[in-house]
Amino acid sequence: MAEKIVIALGGNALQSGKSEATAEAQLEVVKKTCEYIAEISAKGYEMGVVHGNGPQVGRILLASETAKDVTPAMPFDVCGAMSEGYIGYHLQQALKYSLKKRGKDFPVLTVVTQMVVDKEDKGFKNPTKPIGPFYTAEEAKALEETKGYAMKEDAGRGFRRVVASPIPEEIVEIEAIKQLWPTSIVISCGGGGIPVVKHEDGSLEGVAAVIDKDFAAELLAEQVDADVLMILTEVEKVAVNFNKPDQKDLDELTIEEAKKHIEDGQFAPGSMLPKVEAAMKFVQSGEGKKAIITSLDKAIEALEGKTGTTFVK
Amino acid sequence: MAEKIVIALGGNALQSGKSEATAEAQLEVVKKTCEYIAEISAKGYEMGVVHGNGPQVGRILLASETAKDVTPAMPFDVCGAMSEGYIGYHLQQALKYSLKKRGKDFPVLTVVTQMVVDKEDKGFKNPTKPIGPFYTAEEAKALEETKGYAMKEDAGRGFRRVVASPIPEEIVEIEAIKQLWPTSIVISCGGGGIPVVKHEDGSLEGVAAVIDKDFAAELLAEQVDADVLMILTEVEKVAVNFNKPDQKDLDELTIEEAKKHIEDGQFAPGSMLPKVEAAMKFVQSGEGKKAIITSLDKAIEALEGKTGTTFVK
Repeated sequence: MAEKIVIALGGNALQSGKSEATAEAQLEVVKKTCEYIAEISAKGYEMGVVHGNGPQVGRILLASETAKDVTPAMPFDVCGAMSEGYIGYHLQQALKYSLKKRGKDFPVLTVVTQMVVDKEDKGFKNPTKPIGPFYTAEEAKALEETKGYAMKEDAGRGFRRVVASPIPEEIVEIEAIKQLWPTSIVISCGGGGIPVVKHEDGSLEGVAAVIDKDFAAELLAEQVDADVLMILTEVEKVAVNFNKPDQKDLDELTIEEAKKHIEDGQFAPGSMLPKVEAAMKFVQSGEGKKAIITSLDKAIEALEGKTGTTFVK
Repeated sequence: MAEKIVIALGGNALQSGKSEATAEAQLEVVKKTCEYIAEISAKGYEMGVVHGNGPQVGRILLASETAKDVTPAMPFDVCGAMSEGYIGYHLQQALKYSLKKRGKDFPVLTVVTQMVVDKEDKGFKNPTKPIGPFYTAEEAKALEETKGYAMKEDAGRGFRRVVASPIPEEIVEIEAIKQLWPTSIVISCGGGGIPVVKHEDGSLEGVAAVIDKDFAAELLAEQVDADVLMILTEVEKVAVNFNKPDQKDLDELTIEEAKKHIEDGQFAPGSMLPKVEAAMKFVQSGEGKKAIITSLDKAIEALEGKTGTTFVK
């Protein structure tokens, strides 16, 4: 049986450098990314792909808000859905070709994915994730009053809307993703999934929130019974004392060790911390589960145990 | 065996009235639309759903172009991908609930769909479909020179970019759509699919074009071996002498009759004409194939042969 991997792609897999924010530049980066992913597939692994959407959904929202006097602005859940279409399209187009070059001709597709979050998630009471454009204090006040937005001052640069970052609880389209898994490469849970809450009658409603794509990938990995959760980021290994003279890269991390490093504040919130937490959660979800954090270009070596940071119980 | 239907949803299934162009208003219309679609499913039909995206992709492009000095404008193929995410999300959310209310709990999902068109399609030599904002003559000239756009004067209101409307030739994600069909309701080929051309090495590249969603639905219906192509629009029946004192609604149309009406200019290009042409093509694609044009609220009656316009060989 082939090992089953859920791959979580970070921002650097979609965009390189701060100046290149065009779709054309994204496509070029995605093409390179897909060469690496196709190579993993060519090694015989089964896989599903999850990707982030932070910069992309930010730009979609920014364009929408900037043009709001010309055409109605989009709610944030819809911006998320649009980012799934945008990024998924590039990934499925490029990955299909990279696979074909390696003699692998099978379906690669993006499933628009909704993610159920808890209405009572504590994130909704204290939203912290800034999204969209900057506003003046007056504009911010008006948005709080007219639209009920939570607004926060952002490091002296003005006010921004802040939204919750709730824990993903249920992948709405999971049955279809499972059905496709054995024969296809499915790109799903893009940007962590479109956040929705479930009402008592079973209906879903989109909410303005940002779901961490690493937690979404972890949930997916559990639900498809994956063997490996592989979180790809900019560094080859997780480190303690990161960017300090005594930085120490870690080959292996037990749950106990990881907990201690978290308590010591070793991992940056919104950056390495959610990756480590997602990896820990997956390893604890069952027997023989492996989680790896490494960089895209080291993915195969990491799967072979030669590099990366591997999490063990 | 359940009859298999491909349903093509027109603009009125997503939006009502000219003033309501918000996502919130779309969701309300989509909820009503999905009640009708769920009712068809509850009658025991198997189905797949295709939808248009004209007004939606137009607004996405307009927002993107309006905000282009703040954040880079999106290419038109990406705008199409974003519209598939946007509309598909609303449809899958609402349809899942409408089905659940009827005791049907199965996957409903949107597959981001690319559609191969021929680079040599004659549409590319003479693009006619206007998209996006209006420009002055000077701006239009600059866009022709810098970006290679084809620009045309639009009824005295200024200049607009025009793109091709090529014939859809191949649904890139068809294998996955087929695999999902028996167990799920798949929303695919949104807006006719994201238009891509295929290069000699097998790679795909997005192009600026508008694919007619009725032709896309026809191709899908052929490929999933559907029994019925049902094109839902604003009128209960196709008519000749439409909106004239001697308007005559048609219950049935043979291919020969339809051809004659087309020659007589009875059906408006870009409106009823592509619907009639798609219906004719499907009926001619095999034995026992049926095509119906009717309105959303008459869909079940039309399937039972009580109303609508049915196309026969």
